[in-house]
Amino acid sequence: MPRYYRYLGELLDEGVERISSNELSLKMNVTASQIRQDLNNFGGFGQQGYGYNVQYLYEEIGRILGLEQQHNIIIIGVGNLGQALANYGSFEKMGFMITGLFDINPALDGHMVRGVPVRMLSELEEFAAGHKIDIAALTMPKHTADKLARRLVNLGIRAIWNFAHVDLELMDQDVVVENVHLSDSLMQLSYNMLRNGKKKERQEKGDTENR
Amino acid sequence: MPRYYRYLGELLDEGVERISSNELSLKMNVTASQIRQDLNNFGGFGQQGYGYNVQYLYEEIGRILGLEQQHNIIIIGVGNLGQALANYGSFEKMGFMITGLFDINPALDGHMVRGVPVRMLSELEEFAAGHKIDIAALTMPKHTADKLARRLVNLGIRAIWNFAHVDLELMDQDVVVENVHLSDSLMQLSYNMLRNGKKKERQEKGDTENR
Repeated sequence: MPRYYRYLGELLDEGVERISSNELSLKMNVTASQIRQDLNNFGGFGQQGYGYNVQYLYEEIGRILGLEQQHNIIIIGVGNLGQALANYGSFEKMGFMITGLFDINPALDGHMVRGVPVRMLSELEEFAAGHKIDIAALTMPKHTADKLARRLVNLGIRAIWNFAHVDLELMDQDVVVENVHLSDSLMQLSYNMLRNGKKKERQEKGDTENR
Repeated sequence: MPRYYRYLGELLDEGVERISSNELSLKMNVTASQIRQDLNNFGGFGQQGYGYNVQYLYEEIGRILGLEQQHNIIIIGVGNLGQALANYGSFEKMGFMITGLFDINPALDGHMVRGVPVRMLSELEEFAAGHKIDIAALTMPKHTADKLARRLVNLGIRAIWNFAHVDLELMDQDVVVENVHLSDSLMQLSYNMLRNGKKKERQEKGDTENR
């Protein structure tokens, strides 16, 4: 779904008003029947022979993804990664507003990132009492992540965007966690490189033998 | 596989020498039979009744993931995200060495990040001629990503770690791409929050009706 939303947003930017499942299929590198199936699962927006209304589909998928409501995000850990997230303008366009930044480094206290001041982590409870927080992004070292996640859950925060290199051990089923494990992603890349190299070797060997 | 590698590394750090599939199952929140199946697929490291030798399994999976060889990475785009990647010490431990940093901002020219100087993107070809590059990480805006990716492929780079908010249109089947789409991840989180909220509503409604 996020991928559809992204592509439809690009089409809108390009001024495209209607698109057939075949055209979308070519663009997204997915079969047209897969596209029809996916979009039917989510309410069937298409009209046979007319294609999809891009604007309508974009808005509907946005609604399904919960993007029509604003989400307030706090970032815990204002190192390079935390600052990168705070500086992403595109999150705001999707309704994700960075409303709080927290760190334990006193040198960062009061430092502003896009108009949001860095607060000390000790002020978290006070901040949470006065501000609605929907999502907490964790970008601090993994050994502190579990403890902090429990603290966030105790504050009533129901969604964690976890960049710490650990799977959070949360017992609370009500909390949703989305992980971005950069090291895992890099290892996956390494694995695919190796596999690709071996495939190529086999192909070249095959080519030679067939000669 | 990366997830197994991560957990086994943690076990090693904790000084654990042997682990049964049941113990690993509890830790990783995966069924023991799934674990046995996964590890059998990758060569069967276990011995009935003895559990797995953690060190051996860790090294074997590392080998499967291609981590026993060094990978040289260049980062293109030395904004906050690029700097965050360049500063990650844990990549090095897995054999991923950041050997080059490139940007188009002259203000960054010569700026050092962990001993690696930022070069101007115009020097990329010269650098590639004298240095082996295994992976290029792209952290620049999406509108420049496709063109740059083709430039990298022309330089013989066979792996791209893509943070640009776009699916790269590479025709070359030999190139492996691993995407980290942060906005997609955030939308997925939003979707899961909404779904979780609805599930909870239904449960509460059910509870009330059952009273």
